[in-house]
Order: sequence, then structure tokens, then C-alpha cells
Amino acid sequence: MVGAHRTDDPAWPGDVLARIEERRQEYVDLLIDYVSRPSVSASGEGVADVAHYIRDRMEAFGLDTRLIPTAGAPMVFGQRTGAGGPTLLLYGHYDVQPADPADGWTSDPFTPVIRDGRVYARGAADNKGQHLAQLLAVEAFLSCHGQLPCDVKVLLEGEEEIGSPRMPEFVAEHGDLLAADLVVVSDGPVDPSGRPMISLGVRGALGFELRATGANTELHSGHWGGVAPDPVWDLVQLLATMKDARGHVTIDGFYDEVQPLTAAEREALERLEIDVPAIKRDLGFDELAEPRERGVAERRVAWPTLTINGLHAGYDGPGLKSVLPREAVAKCDIRLVEAQRADDVFAKVSAHVKRHAPHVTVTRRGSMEPSRTPIDFPYLEPVRRAIVAAQGQEPVLWPGIGGSLPLYVFTKTLGVPTVQVPCGNADQSQHGPDENLTLDWFMAGIRTTAVLLAELGRHTDARPGPESS
Amino acid sequence: MVGAHRTDDPAWPGDVLARIEERRQEYVDLLIDYVSRPSVSASGEGVADVAHYIRDRMEAFGLDTRLIPTAGAPMVFGQRTGAGGPTLLLYGHYDVQPADPADGWTSDPFTPVIRDGRVYARGAADNKGQHLAQLLAVEAFLSCHGQLPCDVKVLLEGEEEIGSPRMPEFVAEHGDLLAADLVVVSDGPVDPSGRPMISLGVRGALGFELRATGANTELHSGHWGGVAPDPVWDLVQLLATMKDARGHVTIDGFYDEVQPLTAAEREALERLEIDVPAIKRDLGFDELAEPRERGVAERRVAWPTLTINGLHAGYDGPGLKSVLPREAVAKCDIRLVEAQRADDVFAKVSAHVKRHAPHVTVTRRGSMEPSRTPIDFPYLEPVRRAIVAAQGQEPVLWPGIGGSLPLYVFTKTLGVPTVQVPCGNADQSQHGPDENLTLDWFMAGIRTTAVLLAELGRHTDARPGPESS
Repeated sequence: MVGAHRTDDPAWPGDVLARIEERRQEYVDLLIDYVSRPSVSASGEGVADVAHYIRDRMEAFGLDTRLIPTAGAPMVFGQRTGAGGPTLLLYGHYDVQPADPADGWTSDPFTPVIRDGRVYARGAADNKGQHLAQLLAVEAFLSCHGQLPCDVKVLLEGEEEIGSPRMPEFVAEHGDLLAADLVVVSDGPVDPSGRPMISLGVRGALGFELRATGANTELHSGHWGGVAPDPVWDLVQLLATMKDARGHVTIDGFYDEVQPLTAAEREALERLEIDVPAIKRDLGFDELAEPRERGVAERRVAWPTLTINGLHAGYDGPGLKSVLPREAVAKCDIRLVEAQRADDVFAKVSAHVKRHAPHVTVTRRGSMEPSRTPIDFPYLEPVRRAIVAAQGQEPVLWPGIGGSLPLYVFTKTLGVPTVQVPCGNADQSQHGPDENLTLDWFMAGIRTTAVLLAELGRHTDARPGPESS
Repeated sequence: MVGAHRTDDPAWPGDVLARIEERRQEYVDLLIDYVSRPSVSASGEGVADVAHYIRDRMEAFGLDTRLIPTAGAPMVFGQRTGAGGPTLLLYGHYDVQPADPADGWTSDPFTPVIRDGRVYARGAADNKGQHLAQLLAVEAFLSCHGQLPCDVKVLLEGEEEIGSPRMPEFVAEHGDLLAADLVVVSDGPVDPSGRPMISLGVRGALGFELRATGANTELHSGHWGGVAPDPVWDLVQLLATMKDARGHVTIDGFYDEVQPLTAAEREALERLEIDVPAIKRDLGFDELAEPRERGVAERRVAWPTLTINGLHAGYDGPGLKSVLPREAVAKCDIRLVEAQRADDVFAKVSAHVKRHAPHVTVTRRGSMEPSRTPIDFPYLEPVRRAIVAAQGQEPVLWPGIGGSLPLYVFTKTLGVPTVQVPCGNADQSQHGPDENLTLDWFMAGIRTTAVLLAELGRHTDARPGPESS
């Protein structure tokens, strides 16, 4: 069996694109229904229900689906094979970040609202809206043609926002099921300029928590300040040994494994046009973080970071409370670049804490390795053409982005080139309040995947597909 | 008119002490009623109601009372004059620290419960139970004799727990109303050994808040960590410049005005027996704060401190959230010793912040000056005798304690020697969860004030009182 309409007709797949436009309202309604369902992996709220929900949708769209249990949230797998040609694996995540109306949301995070052409809801952009767009391209193709131009597999996980703890083992154990020629991930924002983008890498992430404890109860600061041990000062002084005011992480050996960019990667970075004044204006600050002379793209692609995501001790109410807190906690994340490894960096963090503040406990909270697909990988051109055809603009090529996704399980474990093609607005407020996805980007995401399927079908015509090799 | 029963009868005032014992249950019921009424100055909850409540009680006990409005909580004033002799001014506060069952209380902080001979409630020890005990001594004396052996004035304020912002102006403007020969304050815990104590001084306090801000919204740490300004690192690095790991405050000039103890004060400190192993065992820690070689009493009396009462930024829920917080806040207090002045120290803090982190805002949050009554002041002996007679033990003499009360308004503004005679158990958990007062200490407080009134009446017999000078 061969895929639908393998052809060099440049209008192909015009009928599918027309079908997508006809079904716009129906597709938006599906998006609203999907993001109205909480699936917060940090707390577990709704995760299992949403796994079943999206699996049922995928089945209805025409995929053969399986819900595969793990020790955590189930994996949702779907495929439509038999077309031959290159196999495209789509990866996304059906879980979302925590959200609370008290966090500053204009409307309830799980009561989607359309305002000014955007759907506001937790998960609208990260990642429900973006992988739903991919799935709807499959739906549109199948509803037009009853078959696809290339083989498609889909893997949606439910624990990405807590560091994808099941992905490494799952992918390692399901190499045959997931065998593919190209992985495409649609997640995160597009280029800050608003132009479409292709990214070839992500940073890794290592989460950890530092906890300093003092007396067995909160004490009066007048009687016990300067007498009893002070966990807040202990933690502050420890943290201050971990990063300096120049933005340099001062954990011993932290940068040892960092791999410099290749010349081609540096050239690609230089071609990026980043509107730093616009960033400053939009986000309301005057200066970038130190070191000030370093470029924004280089910071995200080439440098690891250490961020304190949360720092909490003692009184947090109105007015004053003259207490000596009983404990202080810092929740931190490190973003890793090639070729840092989470185990190695965590060992360095632990050794640093042991040396500087042996009474402070350090607890690992999940990690993922970085991933980088070489800039000369074989499917860059069909992806680029799909974007141009579907979105009418040349994409910006990033050698990598600052965020983290467990793409290393594809690049490092399976050895499959992996490309990120976000179809979400740059101002999506991902992880923050008022997360949103524009309907224009949602529709562009559907069209982009539809054309990519066609492009990969064409690509097979020019190169031997797996079934004939 | 002269005071009741001026006599050298060593049994005096035995009838009053007998009356106090008879009324034990009635007095405990009054205590329970008083502490069941929230009066949280940090939020304002219940403060005005409780001012009226305790004024009505004082009137019922036989004092001429006035509720004197201020720009904040009203002052409650009461007096019983005409006895002549030295005038005793009792000072306390009817407001309490914030409390919430979620803070770790075994029972609700405003639903008093008696367990094992202790009343558990916010304010039981700090300060409602202790000044109520003083007032009940007046009540007992008047119910036995219809008059007091010396003149008594009472001043209760309602904003002590937020730094007594009205006291300096109020006392300065009411010098005649408050004129007295001795101020006695019953607040805070007794000596950690459990023995009664007399303290001659308190440290001052200076509250301030540091606030660092970054972008105008919470950001994704993967995309913006190391790119956008980071308020958490800014605050951590600033704080680390303010105190070192040896416990030394590193704000320029911080220790300049610190006045060394006199030889008599040092001798008094050396006589103190502090059971450091018991402190460590009770409070669950292994080592005192740095510098380890410094004595506990010396730390509290002779050294200023800088404590971070609260430190908050970013995510504080379960699991992880990979955000770059938009702001970080530290609420701090400095305890001041003679002869530091709050204005001067705050100027040094502000200059330090401006030099090290000009973008961090520093906001003053109330202050009070330190106070120290010379160890050779004229009324030490009657106070000591009252304690011995009422409690059966020699008091421990502290040249000062670590906590803060606005006693400088008496010592510095009015020029009246001021002595602290706490009648609250050492393990009262003042400012913490499960604050409590033992009924034994409550009753001892009533007896101590009753005997002190008699001692001051006697003192007048031996020395010319104000009415005959």
C-alpha cells in the first residue's frame, strides 16, 4: 500500500487545506473543550481523565490508538501506518503547568475564553493547542483522502511539566513501536519576531531543592536571632556561593562539559534578528541579566543557567512578624547544554552544598538531558518548505532554544533527528498567567502539519522509503 | 490621703494574697475570656473591640480609666491615685501577633484551651495574661482594702506587635499624665532556667523590607532564565553582602555606636546560669549560631542582630514549576543595642542597598530605640523583695534582654527607671504556634504585683514620697 496522492503537483494538498478552513469553528470548539479539562501533572489533577479524553479523540480522528500505562501518567500512542515512506513521529504532552486564578489570571485558567482572537487557558499553547493542531491535520487528511501520504506515529506523554520522568525508560523499551525517520515537536513559542521557526535543539533541565532547617519551631527573633541557628541566612549564604553578580555559576566544574557551538551553528545564531529593545519594552525591564554583552540567542542555546524558581522562609502576611523561621527552602532549576549530563551536574551541586553548607539538604527533583540535532540533518528542507507553504514566510532557524523537552530520548536513545516547529505566538505567556494561543497560530499549526505530511510523501518519491529499502 | 496599711508587718499583704488564692478560678476565667478575643495589630482584627473590653475591665477593677484615641489603636489608660508615695506605672499591650491554625497550632489560637495547667492561646503570655495579672493585683488590693498602698497608673497600648508606632509621640505629649517614679513591665518569658527574673533593658528594633523586581510578569525559566533580570538572585546576592557566615553584620558602620557593657553589667552577665545543652535539646539544634564562642546572654544584651523574618519569591506549591519569579521580598528586623539609633542604622542600611543593589527598594517598617536602666537605679531592692516574697525564689538579674519593647519612651523620654519583671514561663512559645501561659505563672504574676504595691508603700515610709518633698 502506498500513501495518498504521491504527486509533484505544487497545489497538493490544496483540498486538505480547504477542508481545514471549512472546519475552523469545529476545530476551535475542540480546542476549547480540550483546554477546559485540567491535567496538572504537579498535583495529578485530571491527568488520567485527559489521557483517556485525548486518546478517544485520536481514535475518532482515524488513528489506531493505545493507552500505555507507566508508573506515572499513561502514554497515549497512536499511529496510521501502511502508507510507506518516511515515518513521522509527532511528540507532545497532554499535561499542563499548575495554574490558579489567584496567580494573576484575568479569567479562570480552566474556563477558556476567546478574547481578541486568542484562546486564554492553561495549556492553550503549552502544549494542548499545538499538538491538537497536528492531530487535526491528520484528521483533515484522512477525511479528504482516507489515507495519509506517509506513515505517522503520535506519542503524547502526561508528565512533561514535571520533567518527563517516564520518557527515558519508556522510549528505551519501545524502540520498535516508536521507530521513525523524523520527530517533529510543536511546542513553545515561535521566534520572538513573530516569524515561524525551526529549532534543532533544547536545553536539558535539572531540578533540585535546597532545604535549611534551624530549631524545631519558629522562634522570636528578639530572643533567638543571633542565638539559635538561622536557616534563612544559611540558605542565603549558600546560594550566594553558587552564582555571582556577573551571572557566572560558581559551582566547581559547572561549565567543564559545555560543548562549544559549531561554526554553522554560530552562523545560524548570527542570522537571528532579536529585537532586544522590544523584549525590554514588552517585559518591562531596562537591562538584560548579566553578563550584559552576551547575545540573547547565544544565552539560550549555548549557556547553562541556574534559576531559583521559588524561595520561601518565614512570614509572608501583611505587616511585620518578628520571627526567626524554622526552615528555608529554595526550589531551583539548572538548564543544561550539550554535552552536560544531569547526573554529573547534580553530583557537582551536591558536592558544592556539602562543602559550603553540610547541614543543608539537597534533593533532586527530576531532570532531562539536552538534545541537539546536527544542522545538516536530512529532513530540514521538507520541514522548511511545509512552513513556507502553510504560513507564507521563511522560518527562522535556531540551532536550539532555551526551554527543555525530553528530545534527547529521540536524538540520543533512538538516534532519530528531531526538529521543533512551534506553532504558538511568541507572547503566549507559557507557564505564566493568561497563557494564550492565537487562533491564527492554531490554524497555521494545522496547515503546517498537513503540508509536511505531503512534503514527506514527496520526499519518499525522491528517496527510497523504508518499505523498498 | 495615704495608702492602705503602710506597715512594716512582714505578713503584709497576707490578706490580699489569700484573696487572690480564693479567686483563682474567677481570675482564670477572666484570662480565658480576654485571650479568646483576637486583637491582631498586623491586620487590625479585633483591636478596637479589645481596647474597649479591657478598659471596661479596668474600670470594674477600680481604676479611673480613659480610652485615648491615637492615629492608630487607642491607648487604654487607668489610674488610682491619692495614696501618695512613689507612683508605679504599669505598661503592657493588648494587641497580639498574627496567628493561624495552619501555622502549626494544636488548638485554635483564639479558642483558649487549658491543657496540663497551661492556657494555650495567642496572647496568653504576650502580653494579655501578664498585664491582666498586674491588673488583678490591683483588683485584689482594692477589694480587700478599698485603697492601694501607693499610686498606680496603667498604660496599655494596641500596637506593640507592629513596633509601637504611636508610643513615642503619645508619651512625649502626655508627660504629666504618665509621670511616675518607676515603670514595671511584665512581658516576655522568665529566665530560661525557669527562675524569676528582673531585666533592666531591652534591645531596640528596626524593621525593613527589601523588594527586588524583574520583568512585569512571571516568566518561563527555560526561555528567560539568564536572559531577563532575576530578582531572586539580585536579592540573594544583596543579602549575602549584609551578613557573613561568621554571623557578623557587614553593613558599613553597623557596629559603630554600640556601647560596651559596664563592669557591673558584665558581672551580672557572668552570674547568669544559662543551660545551653538544655536549650539545644529543647529547641532541637546542635550548635548555636556563629560566632560559637560568644555567650548566650552577651548575644542578647550586648550585640545587635539582623534577622530575615520572611523571604519569599516565586513558586511555593507542590512539585516543580519552572518559572523565573517577577519579584522577591525579604522582611527583616534588626535588634539594636545601646547606643545605636534606629534612624542612623536605617540610613546605613539604605546606603548599603544603594551601593550594592540600587534597583532593590528598601522600605522602613517601624522601629523602636533600645533602652537600658542603670544597674544602680533606686527601686531594684523593693522589686527584688516582691519577687522573693511572692515567688519564693531570688530573681536572676539581667542587664537587658534580647527582645524589644518601647521602654525607651520611659527611660529616655520621661527619664523614669524602667524594670521588666516577666511572669510568664520560659517555654511560652511567644510569637510562635501553641503560645501558652502556665496558670502557676499567671497566679505568681498577680501575687508579685500585689506584694510590689505593698513594698512600694513601705519604701515611701522609709523615703520621702513625692507628696512630702
